[in-house]
Amino acid sequence: MSSYTKQKLNKVVRGSKRATYNKEAINQILDAGFIGFVSYVYEGTAISIPMAYSRIGDKVYLHGSLKNRMLLAAIEAERMSMTVMHLDALVLARSGLHHSVNYRSATLFGSLVKIEEREKKVEILKSIINYMVPDRWDSLRPINEKEIKSTLVVEMSIESASAKIRDVGVQDEKEDYDTDVWAGLVPIRQVVGDAIRDEMMPDHIKTPEHIINYVNNNKN
Amino acid sequence: MSSYTKQKLNKVVRGSKRATYNKEAINQILDAGFIGFVSYVYEGTAISIPMAYSRIGDKVYLHGSLKNRMLLAAIEAERMSMTVMHLDALVLARSGLHHSVNYRSATLFGSLVKIEEREKKVEILKSIINYMVPDRWDSLRPINEKEIKSTLVVEMSIESASAKIRDVGVQDEKEDYDTDVWAGLVPIRQVVGDAIRDEMMPDHIKTPEHIINYVNNNKN
Repeated sequence: MSSYTKQKLNKVVRGSKRATYNKEAINQILDAGFIGFVSYVYEGTAISIPMAYSRIGDKVYLHGSLKNRMLLAAIEAERMSMTVMHLDALVLARSGLHHSVNYRSATLFGSLVKIEEREKKVEILKSIINYMVPDRWDSLRPINEKEIKSTLVVEMSIESASAKIRDVGVQDEKEDYDTDVWAGLVPIRQVVGDAIRDEMMPDHIKTPEHIINYVNNNKN
Repeated sequence: MSSYTKQKLNKVVRGSKRATYNKEAINQILDAGFIGFVSYVYEGTAISIPMAYSRIGDKVYLHGSLKNRMLLAAIEAERMSMTVMHLDALVLARSGLHHSVNYRSATLFGSLVKIEEREKKVEILKSIINYMVPDRWDSLRPINEKEIKSTLVVEMSIESASAKIRDVGVQDEKEDYDTDVWAGLVPIRQVVGDAIRDEMMPDHIKTPEHIINYVNNNKN
């Protein structure tokens, strides 16, 4: 574990006191979610699309259909960036311009390769499912050859990255502390509700432990 | 109210049955949040950065420091794209590749101008604060000339947009419905906690109605 080198691309210029290049901090942000905003250039315009991902070590994995416009453009460019953000609180200050949010955000830059090897593709698809809900993959109908062949799997080696974390209270202009404006934080979090069984499922199938655990761990 | 024209840039190719170009549907997705992933090209690489926004009619507003790298690059390019996504559920199917999420996502493309006129800048900054927490702006210490001058305000005219909405249950391969795999949805939502008063605030300042309302409306 160490840090990513500060370079032109990943250097945080605005709000640099909230920036970190520490790999462990960045990995924690990645592991706290499973949807990233993947950016690519299409017809000269930058576009970002939310996609499911997984992380293994310094690599991030994505998958899609063989015709996925974004993944094909990224593979051709051999490079990609992805941003993951978690919103933690509204920061409501005494003046408009000191309003902010508490958040954890990571932006990754890296080189991209298409994974062709069968076993590695399966391992990666397993990691993406289990990144969403731990231990789910082994409970599923096994993947078949047609599915493996028809899925595009890409590996991004993280070469450069930065994170920004804001986790402090309201910071106002000194003279504004004397005003009568209400200031404070409103915490925000993502929670899950009780699992809803597929109606097509026979009654004898009980809710498995990995689902019970996932719901309990993410309820509040 | 009508729809955005389907063009090369905004046309949804993959999963097109979940796509909509309807302005009202797209505006609803925008109005349900206040953080968008704004994409820009920097040194040939597409990057996306989360930013607060507001929407008024067919226009989206952003603000930042006068030195904000992203906004300056976007103003120079005179074009921008922004994506907003709300995650509604995990869709846990019987096979790995039918796993999905229920979500509402909108991607906007538009031309960009910098707003220079004082009154309009203030109106836009007000709209951004009130987009985050309704009715907050008028309770604040009024913005001053120095703050207005030192803030970059940009207006994006939405010229093209598309949304994707998935809001249905598990969809598996026909033959997989006979398996014993547990399938279903896990609802996901963003909730707020009780407001946390800034410790520097004198006791006589009571929690204002706009904060009580905001917390109550977003608690569950």
